[in-house]
Order: sequence, then C-alpha cells, then structure tokens
Amino acid sequence: MQNRIITISRQFGSGGRTIGKEVADRLGIHCYDSELIEKIASESGLSKEYIKDRVEDAQHKSWLGNALSSGRDLETGLSTQDFIWHAQRKVILELAQKESCVIVGRCADYILRDYENCLKVYIHASMEKRAERIVKVYGEREESPQKRLKDKDKKRKEYYRFFTDTEWGQADNYHIALDSGVLGIETCVDILAGLYKTK
Amino acid sequence: MQNRIITISRQFGSGGRTIGKEVADRLGIHCYDSELIEKIASESGLSKEYIKDRVEDAQHKSWLGNALSSGRDLETGLSTQDFIWHAQRKVILELAQKESCVIVGRCADYILRDYENCLKVYIHASMEKRAERIVKVYGEREESPQKRLKDKDKKRKEYYRFFTDTEWGQADNYHIALDSGVLGIETCVDILAGLYKTK
Repeated sequence: MQNRIITISRQFGSGGRTIGKEVADRLGIHCYDSELIEKIASESGLSKEYIKDRVEDAQHKSWLGNALSSGRDLETGLSTQDFIWHAQRKVILELAQKESCVIVGRCADYILRDYENCLKVYIHASMEKRAERIVKVYGEREESPQKRLKDKDKKRKEYYRFFTDTEWGQADNYHIALDSGVLGIETCVDILAGLYKTK
Repeated sequence: MQNRIITISRQFGSGGRTIGKEVADRLGIHCYDSELIEKIASESGLSKEYIKDRVEDAQHKSWLGNALSSGRDLETGLSTQDFIWHAQRKVILELAQKESCVIVGRCADYILRDYENCLKVYIHASMEKRAERIVKVYGEREESPQKRLKDKDKKRKEYYRFFTDTEWGQADNYHIALDSGVLGIETCVDILAGLYKTK
C-alpha cells in the first residue's frame, strides 16, 4: 500500500507546526519540519543556515529579490534558488516513497500534487491571534508582531507563487483549511488525526 | 445564550447545499437555502423568480453587468441589486436573532461577520468532480458541464467581491474549508456536525 502523507502549509504564527507535530504523535508517524532543512542541506551540499536564510527567512530582501539576484551552481547551471528547489523536491518525493509522515511547509503540497495518498492541509488564523502567539512563542522583537507577520506572509506568498504558479492560501488548493485561532489547536489536531484514520 | 449559526459558502456542484441540509438534519436545526429567497421576496416585495434571476442565475449577462444596468427602487433610490441586498441582509440578521440554523449561500458569512457564534464554512471540489455531480443532479444541458461551472464560479466570485470587497474562496475568510470531492459528503457532514457539538 502507498504511504500516507499529510502536508501542512501554514501561516506564520498559526500553530501549524505544532498541529503537525501533535497529529504525527497521535498517529505514531514522523513529522518532518526542521529536519527537512537538514535533509535538503545534505542533498545539496549547502549549509542549513544558508538554505534557511535563502528560502523563507531572508530578512533584508524579499524572497523573489533573492531568487533574481542569487548566484548559479557551476555544475548544473541552476540558480541557487532552483538548485535548492530541486534538492527539496527530491527529498520530499523520496520521503513519500519511504514512509507515511507529516510534512510541514516547503511547498510539499505542490511537490506531491500527483501523489494520490496525500491529505493537503492549510492552517491559518487572524492577525490578532497570530500576533499573540508569536510574542508568546518567540518573544518580543524590535519590530511589532504585526509587521513581522506581514513580512513573513508576503515572503511565503511570493515563494509559493514563484515555484508553483498558484495562490498560497486559496482554499481550492487544499483538501482542508482550518482557522486554528477560532477552532483551537486541539480541535484541529482531532479533525486531522480523525481524517487520517477514517479515510 | 446566543443562537449558533453555520454559514455555508459553496462552489456550484460541490454538494455544499446537500451538506448543509444533512448537517442541519443531524443537529435538529433548520437549513435555509431556497427558503431564503422566499423570505427575501417577502421582505422586498419582489418576486422569487426576479430575485433568483437578478442574483446568481442571470444567464445572459454577468451579475456585475446586471448590477450596473438595473433599475432603481422609486421609494429608496437604491439600485435593484442594492435593494435586494438590503432585504437579504435584514432577513439573515433576523434569522440569526431568531434561531440556531444553517444558512447556505447569500454572503451570509459576510453579513454575519460580527456575529460571534457563527461557524463559517466553504465547500469546494475539483472541476472534474463537480462536472460529474451537476450532470448527475441537474442532467445534461446544451452547454458542457465545465462551461456551466466556469460561468457560475465567475458570477459567484463577482457577486461576492462586489458586496463584500473580499475574495470568495480565500481560505482566510472561513473557519473551515473542505474539499467535498476528496473527503466525501458524509465526512464533511461528520466534521461540521462534530464541530457544532463540541464548540
């Protein structure tokens, strides 16, 4: 039987990562999140920090700006962004072949779009609820939580659109989308674990 | 205690109406769908057919085209579309005051945006699944099911944007969005009835 995968796309501060981990724990499968970066680093030969910085967490430039101005890999001729994307794609496709698991972020929903046994999830919440959460989880910063959220949302949106040519956060792109701020993290976990068990 | 409302926005052919009815049956509350048109007709003094035709089912003109070219009510000075909208808004706000219920369509999610005890649901499915369903439910027509779906999607999108100034089908606008084609109607009903009971 084909492995069963849950992909979780999530707005920054929505608790999507926590939901992914709790669902995986409940189901006795693995949740790939920061480990994905390690795997992509190992696949590409680039450092974890470099990948992290180049993908979602670039602080001073938009992701698209980075993509356009970044260097090229001498061997493949690919831009660094494309080179990372190919490594990421390979890692995610191999994971799906290897085991049932939860994968958080990294456009896994798009990369696994032709993989039948995949539940595509999107987790979001209001700006207010997310601001509250990021201050609680990551602490205060010089920038307001609202500004941090807006920057992250913009980068994730650009990144997703650049590689997938579809809109991040459009309900049609997911099998289920949940407002974790209104429904609560525990209810989201219940629904997703329940779906995995019954489908 | 405040009444509890479930609003269901749905893509044409996604089974959203059926899901609304089954959820309501399961919970022992009423589902307002075509009855809403009757109530709006009674509130506005316009005929059911006229309202239906003017809102989503105008066949030869886009909804926006109708809105721009339609007549005005002599007493209020409102365009017919605005006049219907105000009647619709009044009917939906009164329903929420009167009883716990499910409301399908009619931008009820937007109209009840400040109403706390409201679960906002969006039901969608792939073009393929919806085409299959509308042929099964409504029969063959001269136009292909794909063409019928595209026309309806476009009209509902325009209608929603015109009155709410937000995007129809954007996951952030709903508490839960479900792909009924992949999850199945019964599973969608289970999840929604479960949420109503536990929240």
